[in-house]
Amino acid sequence: MNSKPRIVEVRQNVLKHNDEVARALRQRFHNAGVFVVSLVSSPGAGKTAFLEKTLTRLKQRDLRPAALVGDLATDHDAARLARSQAPVKQITTGTLCHLEAAMIQQALEEWNLEELDFLFIENVGNLVCPSSYDLGENLRLVLLSVTEGEDKPLKYPTIFNTADVAVVTKIDLAEAVEFNWAQTNANLQAVRRDMPVIQVSAKTGQGMDEWMAFLASASRSADRTPRG
Amino acid sequence: MNSKPRIVEVRQNVLKHNDEVARALRQRFHNAGVFVVSLVSSPGAGKTAFLEKTLTRLKQRDLRPAALVGDLATDHDAARLARSQAPVKQITTGTLCHLEAAMIQQALEEWNLEELDFLFIENVGNLVCPSSYDLGENLRLVLLSVTEGEDKPLKYPTIFNTADVAVVTKIDLAEAVEFNWAQTNANLQAVRRDMPVIQVSAKTGQGMDEWMAFLASASRSADRTPRG
Repeated sequence: MNSKPRIVEVRQNVLKHNDEVARALRQRFHNAGVFVVSLVSSPGAGKTAFLEKTLTRLKQRDLRPAALVGDLATDHDAARLARSQAPVKQITTGTLCHLEAAMIQQALEEWNLEELDFLFIENVGNLVCPSSYDLGENLRLVLLSVTEGEDKPLKYPTIFNTADVAVVTKIDLAEAVEFNWAQTNANLQAVRRDMPVIQVSAKTGQGMDEWMAFLASASRSADRTPRG
Repeated sequence: MNSKPRIVEVRQNVLKHNDEVARALRQRFHNAGVFVVSLVSSPGAGKTAFLEKTLTRLKQRDLRPAALVGDLATDHDAARLARSQAPVKQITTGTLCHLEAAMIQQALEEWNLEELDFLFIENVGNLVCPSSYDLGENLRLVLLSVTEGEDKPLKYPTIFNTADVAVVTKIDLAEAVEFNWAQTNANLQAVRRDMPVIQVSAKTGQGMDEWMAFLASASRSADRTPRG
């Protein structure tokens, strides 16, 4: 296959370009004082339900969150998130299985970042493609539902390794699926040592206080960290 | 972005090459009288559990199944499937989010296809990447668990549109997650009209008889269909 080295070369150019755009975005976010969290997971892990609760809680505290949400097709997720009253924009990727920094840049064109405290970027549901694309975020959050099985961190090590925090979702179903927490946590720590892990249920609200406290603390420490 | 057209071109070459290898594989499978089913789904939808039960049931009927299983890392799935006593081989894809026909070709090198009745190919857990890669299979099966939400066919139309049959898994959890069967089926039919859909639980065995009957019927009609 002669085409192999050429793909690698093109891919590296794309990634290099993405890194440059992401770096500029990160600087812009910092200057505007907005804390940016990206969310990655497999399809159906519960990103949108978790994010809707998060947006609603932040709004209740008079904070100013917004969200960008990536999908191949449909704008269902944006409609669901908009119920929180936060500004939401859908990014439709067509056949592309991840978001890129340039898409974020473009989606933000009409927004004034100075008017935001938090920006959430919900990536396309995929445990592989999003891993190499920096979106300028402060925090990358990987979600894993109790129904997916304990082995996912070992099977998709790159995405878990590049995440800053893991959120185990649908914890209300833990018993029904005989979820093994100790095994899951061990697998998470095996691919990413000392990764903070929060167990939540968007349905019952369990763990959401802990998550909000984590988010507040992470955004405070970002304020003190110089970037460039 | 000047690199854009170049990526498309390279990708088309890769796909063209894949199609050629897949065509040769399909002919080989036909000549050997082996019926080939590929399985695609998001991570954690239950491909391996479903496949383990399928292999075991086929073995009980004195049929000769085998399986190839793709993963980025680990050989856990191959170890699980091997409990069925069927021949199983793991294909480790590294960072690649799908299997390609050439990987199947290589993995089959040491096997005598004449000694098999069924070959199952479990793709990497991903609802995007595998859609464009023909593996020479007779039947592409897409799995969707009740815990993933009813909207997945609309959000990942390409993979559902290229599938021949849908299997809804973890049906034992349907009540706990308030699964809406009518909505799911409507969404499946919207992207792929007249798609057969089978509801199963690998845990309780529900629906497995129906699946085995479907498989037997599909393999019989393949015998009568000339290919080339």
